Amino acid sequence: MSLFHRSFTKAGAPPGVMARPADSPPPKITALEFNAKALQEQECQSMAEVPALFDEGFVTWVDVQGLGNGQVVQEFADLLGIHPLAASDVVNVGQRPKVERYEEHLFVVLRMALLDPDQRLRWEQVSMFLGRDYVLTFQESYGDCLEPLRTRIRNGRKRIRSSGADYLACTIIDAIVDGFFPVLERYGDLLEDLEHRILQTQDRHVLQDLYLTKRDLAGFRRATWPLRDALSQLLRDDEAPLTDMSRLHLRDVADHTMQVVEVNESYRELSASLVDVHLSIIGQRTNEVMRVLTVVSAIFIPMTFVAGIYGMNFDTNAPGNLPELTWPYGYVYFWLVCAAMAVSLLLLFRRLGWLRH
Amino acid sequence: MSLFHRSFTKAGAPPGVMARPADSPPPKITALEFNAKALQEQECQSMAEVPALFDEGFVTWVDVQGLGNGQVVQEFADLLGIHPLAASDVVNVGQRPKVERYEEHLFVVLRMALLDPDQRLRWEQVSMFLGRDYVLTFQESYGDCLEPLRTRIRNGRKRIRSSGADYLACTIIDAIVDGFFPVLERYGDLLEDLEHRILQTQDRHVLQDLYLTKRDLAGFRRATWPLRDALSQLLRDDEAPLTDMSRLHLRDVADHTMQVVEVNESYRELSASLVDVHLSIIGQRTNEVMRVLTVVSAIFIPMTFVAGIYGMNFDTNAPGNLPELTWPYGYVYFWLVCAAMAVSLLLLFRRLGWLRH
Amino acid sequence: MSLFHRSFTKAGAPPGVMARPADSPPPKITALEFNAKALQEQECQSMAEVPALFDEGFVTWVDVQGLGNGQVVQEFADLLGIHPLAASDVVNVGQRPKVERYEEHLFVVLRMALLDPDQRLRWEQVSMFLGRDYVLTFQESYGDCLEPLRTRIRNGRKRIRSSGADYLACTIIDAIVDGFFPVLERYGDLLEDLEHRILQTQDRHVLQDLYLTKRDLAGFRRATWPLRDALSQLLRDDEAPLTDMSRLHLRDVADHTMQVVEVNESYRELSASLVDVHLSIIGQRTNEVMRVLTVVSAIFIPMTFVAGIYGMNFDTNAPGNLPELTWPYGYVYFWLVCAAMAVSLLLLFRRLGWLRH
Amino acid sequence: MSLFHRSFTKAGAPPGVMARPADSPPPKITALEFNAKALQEQECQSMAEVPALFDEGFVTWVDVQGLGNGQVVQEFADLLGIHPLAASDVVNVGQRPKVERYEEHLFVVLRMALLDPDQRLRWEQVSMFLGRDYVLTFQESYGDCLEPLRTRIRNGRKRIRSSGADYLACTIIDAIVDGFFPVLERYGDLLEDLEHRILQTQDRHVLQDLYLTKRDLAGFRRATWPLRDALSQLLRDDEAPLTDMSRLHLRDVADHTMQVVEVNESYRELSASLVDVHLSIIGQRTNEVMRVLTVVSAIFIPMTFVAGIYGMNFDTNAPGNLPELTWPYGYVYFWLVCAAMAVSLLLLFRRLGWLRH
Amino acid sequence: MSLFHRSFTKAGAPPGVMARPADSPPPKITALEFNAKALQEQECQSMAEVPALFDEGFVTWVDVQGLGNGQVVQEFADLLGIHPLAASDVVNVGQRPKVERYEEHLFVVLRMALLDPDQRLRWEQVSMFLGRDYVLTFQESYGDCLEPLRTRIRNGRKRIRSSGADYLACTIIDAIVDGFFPVLERYGDLLEDLEHRILQTQDRHVLQDLYLTKRDLAGFRRATWPLRDALSQLLRDDEAPLTDMSRLHLRDVADHTMQVVEVNESYRELSASLVDVHLSIIGQRTNEVMRVLTVVSAIFIPMTFVAGIYGMNFDTNAPGNLPELTWPYGYVYFWLVCAAMAVSLLLLFRRLGWLRH
Repeated sequence: MSLFHRSFTKAGAPPGVMARPADSPPPKITALEFNAKALQEQECQSMAEVPALFDEGFVTWVDVQGLGNGQVVQEFADLLGIHPLAASDVVNVGQRPKVERYEEHLFVVLRMALLDPDQRLRWEQVSMFLGRDYVLTFQESYGDCLEPLRTRIRNGRKRIRSSGADYLACTIIDAIVDGFFPVLERYGDLLEDLEHRILQTQDRHVLQDLYLTKRDLAGFRRATWPLRDALSQLLRDDEAPLTDMSRLHLRDVADHTMQVVEVNESYRELSASLVDVHLSIIGQRTNEVMRVLTVVSAIFIPMTFVAGIYGMNFDTNAPGNLPELTWPYGYVYFWLVCAAMAVSLLLLFRRLGWLRH
Repeated sequence: MSLFHRSFTKAGAPPGVMARPADSPPPKITALEFNAKALQEQECQSMAEVPALFDEGFVTWVDVQGLGNGQVVQEFADLLGIHPLAASDVVNVGQRPKVERYEEHLFVVLRMALLDPDQRLRWEQVSMFLGRDYVLTFQESYGDCLEPLRTRIRNGRKRIRSSGADYLACTIIDAIVDGFFPVLERYGDLLEDLEHRILQTQDRHVLQDLYLTKRDLAGFRRATWPLRDALSQLLRDDEAPLTDMSRLHLRDVADHTMQVVEVNESYRELSASLVDVHLSIIGQRTNEVMRVLTVVSAIFIPMTFVAGIYGMNFDTNAPGNLPELTWPYGYVYFWLVCAAMAVSLLLLFRRLGWLRH
Repeated sequence: MSLFHRSFTKAGAPPGVMARPADSPPPKITALEFNAKALQEQECQSMAEVPALFDEGFVTWVDVQGLGNGQVVQEFADLLGIHPLAASDVVNVGQRPKVERYEEHLFVVLRMALLDPDQRLRWEQVSMFLGRDYVLTFQESYGDCLEPLRTRIRNGRKRIRSSGADYLACTIIDAIVDGFFPVLERYGDLLEDLEHRILQTQDRHVLQDLYLTKRDLAGFRRATWPLRDALSQLLRDDEAPLTDMSRLHLRDVADHTMQVVEVNESYRELSASLVDVHLSIIGQRTNEVMRVLTVVSAIFIPMTFVAGIYGMNFDTNAPGNLPELTWPYGYVYFWLVCAAMAVSLLLLFRRLGWLRH
Repeated sequence: MSLFHRSFTKAGAPPGVMARPADSPPPKITALEFNAKALQEQECQSMAEVPALFDEGFVTWVDVQGLGNGQVVQEFADLLGIHPLAASDVVNVGQRPKVERYEEHLFVVLRMALLDPDQRLRWEQVSMFLGRDYVLTFQESYGDCLEPLRTRIRNGRKRIRSSGADYLACTIIDAIVDGFFPVLERYGDLLEDLEHRILQTQDRHVLQDLYLTKRDLAGFRRATWPLRDALSQLLRDDEAPLTDMSRLHLRDVADHTMQVVEVNESYRELSASLVDVHLSIIGQRTNEVMRVLTVVSAIFIPMTFVAGIYGMNFDTNAPGNLPELTWPYGYVYFWLVCAAMAVSLLLLFRRLGWLRH
Repeated sequence: MSLFHRSFTKAGAPPGVMARPADSPPPKITALEFNAKALQEQECQSMAEVPALFDEGFVTWVDVQGLGNGQVVQEFADLLGIHPLAASDVVNVGQRPKVERYEEHLFVVLRMALLDPDQRLRWEQVSMFLGRDYVLTFQESYGDCLEPLRTRIRNGRKRIRSSGADYLACTIIDAIVDGFFPVLERYGDLLEDLEHRILQTQDRHVLQDLYLTKRDLAGFRRATWPLRDALSQLLRDDEAPLTDMSRLHLRDVADHTMQVVEVNESYRELSASLVDVHLSIIGQRTNEVMRVLTVVSAIFIPMTFVAGIYGMNFDTNAPGNLPELTWPYGYVYFWLVCAAMAVSLLLLFRRLGWLRH
């Protein structure tokens, strides 16, 4: 995954320009209309069917998966009076999470965490518009973590069916925030695995894996930290179109976001500590290797020198030249010298603590 | 202990869903009813006995240890009008400490620190509801640090018996915060032990132990930092259902929490410094080992080379070949050369300061 | 590029002194006058033509590229009643981004990021004055990222042509902030390249390049962080001469600035992590090199010593001297001793894990 | 000194419980009563004499050194209506510095720094109660830094004698804050000494000493940082019982506290930098040692190999075996080979810069 | 320069005590009296001449360089009604920059940066009192950066001559803040030089110099950070005796201070990065040295062992003993063995990448 992933328009282009995000599939539009008594579900084939969706007396949730070309966003913007600045943020995916109040609607940008079946983390921008009696969501690509929520609406759970669009918007945010927890759990497992590898086995690639985990956690942070601020700002905003029940719910969601942020922070700290542990263990191992080399060298190099002396070819007939060579038991004497040297060095090394494992 | 330990419900599930926490034992319900004059204590066998507990004119403290299945929480919620969001936070243990004001009650989440007999730290979520004349506490498992408080109530200490439920709630928070101090003391001892091991003995596992301590301190921080914020927010909240006496008490508790946070912070800093010291001592030891190796090698390798020269088998009869071998006292001359080399190198090394310990 | 790049006047000089910035080319003055219906474009040859530019009923954008000598700034200041303090900040380039409200005008200092064709980053101070119906911009040198904006005005895009000078000012700020994204993208690519080089190839100059990238990111931060503060301060200022539409636009720009700051922060963090990874990989490689040295030395040095023993010239006729030399198969016995030593050391090293790659 | 030093009561004990601090000596009670005209000084033998001390029209300063058993605190609490929570903080020494306003009195906790004659730092909790016309101070042990203040009162310095109890309280706080400066000076000297040792001599224990200094500075921070907050909070509190003159004085004290905090912070930073310098110098020295080893080894090991060749006992009569041995001047040829190898290696090492010191 | 440099009075001494700063020269008093039309300049020989300086209708700037003995401060305090606390801060030099509003005057403490001719940085406390129509400045020693300002006043620049004392005070602060920029420029040059030395030459003392630079930057920070806070607090204070013009000017000065702080911060960060680069380059060099040692040792030690074998004196007449010695071309065979070993090791090392520079 690329480090920098944000669509952006050329500097100086008009603020609401509709660019086509590079990898986004063609849009699929589905609608859920409901009130306490009735429920209609519909998959739209074209934009032409959309205006009919917004019935009086119903809460309508239109969900657009895939931005395909920016055209669909533009048409919704024209239909619902969406501000061009907001529409442009929908298309230029990679925005930071935020809540913006426009006159006609509340605009929320979120990042949804999705764990692929092979446990790889994928991020996707969800843009949500909350109008008087509709919620409009745009998702970057197909697949989301909102299916249980749709089931809940279909099953007619009382509270969500009888509440307004604002409560629906809160439950969508709630579902996306709840989707962070399995990811946190997965990274907790990853860190524990790295911890084990660093403390026990010290394989060669552990630091690389740790670095990649830190990089992912930094991305996680960028997705959650601004959300925390956005939610608490929304809670403080007395004029936001939220009922008391929605506010209570949102306070709970904000608290969970806060928890996600805190757990993420402590993961980041732990991974920084693990780098220190890793560096220190490498230093310790180098130290141990050096000690072995030094002990072996310090014992054998002097003895080799002594053996070298008695291998010299001085003429033993000339006076004073290597008399030891002709001594009886000169070889035994040689061994005594070597043993004395080795033992005293070993004693020294033991005192220095270099023979301890 | 796992790094990530929070129960969470599937994304999109309704906010107040009652999941069964994995390891929680079946609930034990005990009740203490008291006023300045009378005291009743009761262990309930089933939920059916609970409604009778809340007598007019009494302060009732119902303590539920073990969440077993979420059912008991649900039944209390129905009985006392507890908000589903709060009830859900009781069951989904691993919440961050917080104070939330609902219309019917004040909801407080705390983390209680328990030192096992073998001095291992265990955390447990305590959820507390403060109603008009009752306090309802839920604990994740059996055993707590509130026994002295219960004894105090039984003994009829004047102030607590004659005050309201809010004062009881404050004393419970106080008792839990006071429970942090023995843990801090224990970690202070651990750090001093690590300090001693790093500065004096440098055993092999010290960094591992230091890392595990840092991990525990990070958990400690996650339990106390939010509590500090929650308490000061509660103190600033003029509409919180607290008497002046309770507020004074709570201010004291908030101050103690602040102290716990500060001591914890300085522990974290000290352990970071200890990592530096450890790395530096390892570096210093490697340096010393290298110096021994270098001094020994630099002295003996050249001498061994000289000995090797005179061990060569050049035909000394051919002109110019190893005349030294036949010199009288050539062996003495050899030793003089070696001694001169060794002494000059030793002088050099002494000047470089490599012979100092 | 120099680390410190700010023109400054001698301490104690009067506040509005007009110094000539060292490297700034002579000024080129161009003007765009427009309203919803008409558009005039003009390149001024001298200051004398300037006063005629400000027609009633038009929005006038005068753009001065190159400060040449401070004189041109002084003359504009006299013409438009610009405060000497602001004029002095125009000439003393290297100011931090800021928004200052004077009675007659709003004064905005920005830093514009320009990528040279060879992808080198260049910063340039843009000073903007927003009056009642004019915008006056000063640029340090020729060339900018505002050309698409000029085209938009010429093309008569409705919104910008029919709005006031304040909206024009917002779009200029927007264009400059949008100009940060390609630079961020470029640095994202650079960091990924560095990441690859550190994790895969470890070439010699990677840390140097990483350091230079960090230095550039620090400069980037200095250009964007204060801008974030200045914009949010401007948004909170109820008396700033901005229409609601401009405010909405500016809120969006502020949000993009915030995003630039956050991405930059995460780049800085990642580059710090990369330094750790680099240090650790170097440590690991040193460790591996040492292991090879130690294994080779520990195996061959003792064997060389044994060979040295049997190369000694002790008189084998004297009793007890090197009887092995005359043993039958003494040579085989020598090889057995060497092999035993080598094998037992290899087994030891395998158990220590030093033979694993 | 222990890392964790706070007396604490068992969790759940009543808030105002009177524990006996472990090391506190029996209490000595002295009283200073004064107004602009008169002065009485008295040492009380027992609590019975205390109530008589508080005369109308006098400012009374009762100083209790040593908490002995908590009883004395309890008795003062009963006499002066001290709140149990405050009384409990007096006895449970090790509190963080704070200012708490109770109805009857202002309660201030401070930490006093004392330099022993052997320049060791000792901390002591000073608890101060400011009532309408009395100041009551409790000190953990005998000896303090307030003697010059007492002398000032005795000498009848105008301002302090004619002002109220609140001014006396401010001067006591001032004296305690002023007592931090000699300690800072001492730690400045210690750091300069460490700086010198690290940059010049690199003795073995420097890091240990640096660590202990950092630990002391962390303790210093814990004593001063909260005090800064407490004082500025007291200054902002319009209802605190302080005259304008006392407020001015307190503002000055708060500023000095701020300065103590800042100097302490910069000490902490410098000591962190010193750790880096230390690590880097160790690395540099290891590098130098390695260079010596490598140069010596790389020069002599190949030459030793060459000498070893000519020490081989191949039968020179068999064809092709070691013809050099019988060459005339073969020995000279050997030396030429060795010299060529050594010189070319030395040139190589010089080019690598390894021969520079 | 000493790390801790603040004069302080003995703990418990009265707040306004007049100590003689250790190194301060005897005071030189000069006065500038001016209004829009007239200017008088005067050097006072004694305090007796001072009272005559304060003429009605003039702005009087009295500048005292050198505090000599505290007596001169005391006399000014008596004359102008300066508060003892402020007077005491003048004498006890080393105060942190601050702005304090007293009833009779505004009291500003600044630190002035002076570059000696040999480019060494020197700090000096400037204490300024702003009364209704006078400015009184005290400087620690002779020499300052205010000469251009004095010239400006003498030259009768309109604005400063026709404005009040508050504008004069602002220009003095401005001049002192402008004096920080050349110092920043100098440190920018120093850091670039260090950068070059670390990246290119790695001389031995670079880290020492880097450390000393960091220490200076820490001092710089201590002089500027509090000033930023003090100025913005003064700007927010609606009752400060400042005209609108002075406020505008001060806002500009505050902004420049902010810039000084930010540049200083980025210097500090860069120097921290340089330490990392330095550590990493040392590690890399050690790694390279080790690789050379290992390659040389691993190639020659086994070959030396082989040569040692054939230097053994086994009796070749006994069966099985060193038959190679008598082989024809045994010497050639020896060389083949050695070459095979060396080549295979070189291939291995090339594959490990150890032969690359």
